[in-house]
Amino acid sequence: MPLTNRLSAEVFGTFWLVLGGCGSAVLAAAFPGVGIGLHGVSLAFGLTVVTMAYAVGPISGCHLNPAVTLGLAVGGRFAWKDVVPYWAAQVAGAILAGCVLYLIASGKPLFQAGGFACNGYGIHSPGQYSLGSAFLTEVVMTFFFLFVILGATSKRAPAGFAPLAIGLCLTLIHLVSIPVTNTSVNPARSTGVAFFAEGGWALGQLWLFWVAPLLGAAAAGFVFPRLNKDADAAS
Amino acid sequence: MPLTNRLSAEVFGTFWLVLGGCGSAVLAAAFPGVGIGLHGVSLAFGLTVVTMAYAVGPISGCHLNPAVTLGLAVGGRFAWKDVVPYWAAQVAGAILAGCVLYLIASGKPLFQAGGFACNGYGIHSPGQYSLGSAFLTEVVMTFFFLFVILGATSKRAPAGFAPLAIGLCLTLIHLVSIPVTNTSVNPARSTGVAFFAEGGWALGQLWLFWVAPLLGAAAAGFVFPRLNKDADAAS
Amino acid sequence: MPLTNRLSAEVFGTFWLVLGGCGSAVLAAAFPGVGIGLHGVSLAFGLTVVTMAYAVGPISGCHLNPAVTLGLAVGGRFAWKDVVPYWAAQVAGAILAGCVLYLIASGKPLFQAGGFACNGYGIHSPGQYSLGSAFLTEVVMTFFFLFVILGATSKRAPAGFAPLAIGLCLTLIHLVSIPVTNTSVNPARSTGVAFFAEGGWALGQLWLFWVAPLLGAAAAGFVFPRLNKDADAAS
Amino acid sequence: MPLTNRLSAEVFGTFWLVLGGCGSAVLAAAFPGVGIGLHGVSLAFGLTVVTMAYAVGPISGCHLNPAVTLGLAVGGRFAWKDVVPYWAAQVAGAILAGCVLYLIASGKPLFQAGGFACNGYGIHSPGQYSLGSAFLTEVVMTFFFLFVILGATSKRAPAGFAPLAIGLCLTLIHLVSIPVTNTSVNPARSTGVAFFAEGGWALGQLWLFWVAPLLGAAAAGFVFPRLNKDADAAS
Repeated sequence: MPLTNRLSAEVFGTFWLVLGGCGSAVLAAAFPGVGIGLHGVSLAFGLTVVTMAYAVGPISGCHLNPAVTLGLAVGGRFAWKDVVPYWAAQVAGAILAGCVLYLIASGKPLFQAGGFACNGYGIHSPGQYSLGSAFLTEVVMTFFFLFVILGATSKRAPAGFAPLAIGLCLTLIHLVSIPVTNTSVNPARSTGVAFFAEGGWALGQLWLFWVAPLLGAAAAGFVFPRLNKDADAAS
Repeated sequence: MPLTNRLSAEVFGTFWLVLGGCGSAVLAAAFPGVGIGLHGVSLAFGLTVVTMAYAVGPISGCHLNPAVTLGLAVGGRFAWKDVVPYWAAQVAGAILAGCVLYLIASGKPLFQAGGFACNGYGIHSPGQYSLGSAFLTEVVMTFFFLFVILGATSKRAPAGFAPLAIGLCLTLIHLVSIPVTNTSVNPARSTGVAFFAEGGWALGQLWLFWVAPLLGAAAAGFVFPRLNKDADAAS
Repeated sequence: MPLTNRLSAEVFGTFWLVLGGCGSAVLAAAFPGVGIGLHGVSLAFGLTVVTMAYAVGPISGCHLNPAVTLGLAVGGRFAWKDVVPYWAAQVAGAILAGCVLYLIASGKPLFQAGGFACNGYGIHSPGQYSLGSAFLTEVVMTFFFLFVILGATSKRAPAGFAPLAIGLCLTLIHLVSIPVTNTSVNPARSTGVAFFAEGGWALGQLWLFWVAPLLGAAAAGFVFPRLNKDADAAS
Repeated sequence: MPLTNRLSAEVFGTFWLVLGGCGSAVLAAAFPGVGIGLHGVSLAFGLTVVTMAYAVGPISGCHLNPAVTLGLAVGGRFAWKDVVPYWAAQVAGAILAGCVLYLIASGKPLFQAGGFACNGYGIHSPGQYSLGSAFLTEVVMTFFFLFVILGATSKRAPAGFAPLAIGLCLTLIHLVSIPVTNTSVNPARSTGVAFFAEGGWALGQLWLFWVAPLLGAAAAGFVFPRLNKDADAAS
């Protein structure tokens, strides 16, 4: 598949991840009386990946996330030379989605952007968790996200189920960690909405949601092939 | 498979989509104390498609939605000559389901139809979103719905998983957009209940829930094959 | 597989359906503040079928429901001579589960049985729906339950996915219809708990939850093979 | 696969089960207004198994639970000599996860450990269920958990679906039984957090969450092969 097609698939896919995931948070999480809550938002994030992985997995691999791209490269499953183009496509798709979501959300009387589904720590953490808790959470959650991705797409895993396993892993990660950081594990997702938080605080905290997920992903890319060594030697 | 069997399958299938999806909204969403909320309604809509796609997918393709039929035709996956018969079957199934749902729902003391799960914008949007937000939402959501359908049923995608991917995509779309338009992305679903909203406003707003989904679907039918070109050339 | 093994599998399976489904309703639906609500109960019922269908599907076919057994017999997929033994096994498993659930539930201070997850209509319908609405709901819901079962287990359907499609169909049916009848579509499930409702009303209304589901199931067993005729001729 | 790799996989997997399952309970279940409730916690526990079973199933079998290891050994599916090493790895992973979860959770202003997702009975049962109810619940639930595991991984079951069936079974078990014991069915999970409950009561009740699950699991390991005998003779 030509690189332009693969990059376009990453743009569309990351657009969908941010529009679907952050969109459910901004538009529906706290809808009076019947809102979907953190549970519904968790499901929405996971389903963006499930749906796109079946749709564009065969085109681009459906990373939709700079941490995923890095973790796969460290794990020997992705060409290093394509890492930066993938990152650019992912961030572009995410920012575009942030804009479209803002356009939709602002069509409501008395609209206020509020946190706009941004990731944060300290006073900007949904549950006011400290920087330390936030950093640890993002590292560990992204580590296991990549661990599951590398395992579910290994040659030993049953074919066809990886999109479900990976998407539902993202749902699980959100079920646990929205209260801590609003859950990133994806620097592109964090960047895509960071411009829209009221007060501009999200750009100042954005560094953590690049550093911690990339660290966790790289660690998993290093660890998993050693655990699964025979299959990785063969693949 | 003869056309009459395929059309019957579309009637049954769209009946189920409207009875299950709108039924969950009318009967169970706001049940006191333990109601299923927008999250449960989102799951119900998606599961109507999951279940029917496994049941009648092999018979009719299980479109259940004029926008899906159009998008598949534009994408070169469905014969243009069958589009209008499919639309007629889908609308017939949807209206029939609206009637049965009304019959069930009205068997409750002090029943009031209320919005009866109709789609709307402006003052009839659940969250009072503007016509512009509503139109944009329906176009974008239907675009991605068809994008996922075309991808998950592509020759490159793993066989057997498409019903899950497509149904769960409809769940995701509802998780995001019920507050904006009550979520259509399906002109037949909108038409099936439009006669029952108290005050008759839903028929006057029905045009948007034909125009916007069809536009979004056609756009996806145009874009996706170009993204996935080698597979489409082969298919 | 010998009939005794198949019947044992139906006993265990229907036990699990009633313990899991009714158990979630009795023990967890209205737990203060964090209860699972009708949405959680719907999921629980569906998952009893998903899990058992993977576990004992290859042994007994995993009907767990007299209406399913009848519908399959009418549809030509099950031997008429085994219908009554299957019904007996299903009812036995269900009643046993009702007893175990009562034993567990009554181990709580100030326990009251209340409705004990029984099915009812009129003043015993959760939303006080009339006998007419209840009857219509049970017929239509069981019709589509069998429709999906017959479709998802047809030779044309992708192998291995039927347990998911069928279990999730039961979840969907509950998402829609708990407010109307507390959802039966399964005479064994209704019978298994009918002895425990406070005031003894459930036994007096039990007839509906045999008649309506069996009717709906038989209708689907008649209709579906005609819709899917070529595959059914071949099967 | 060498034993060290298999044991490492069990450590990582059980770590994930406790961090994801107990983490969702501690951090997100009762989050003000939009908390995930018992439903979300049930989903989280199940998804830890779904995701890990696809990731490390091919490495270690992905037991993550001493009761699972015992039940598989009794059922003739696992070598007795590896039981104790597996148990040690599972408990180590669980305790490690308890520590990391404590570290994250305590990074919140005015943090209180409370029950810290521990399992209990009597006054420490979420719904104050008696020791008898708790014991019965844990035995029966673990019995069916192993019943489903043995069935879904049998040679007769469709390949690739076992992780879904098994993980969703754990979700179902939680949907029913969190109010009774906070749900264990897994001695390692109970042990992993038992050190952190305020007041130290959890260590005193820990015996039940070893004895009852192991009993239920052993019973299923004895019963299921007799039910499924031909396949088990062949396997």
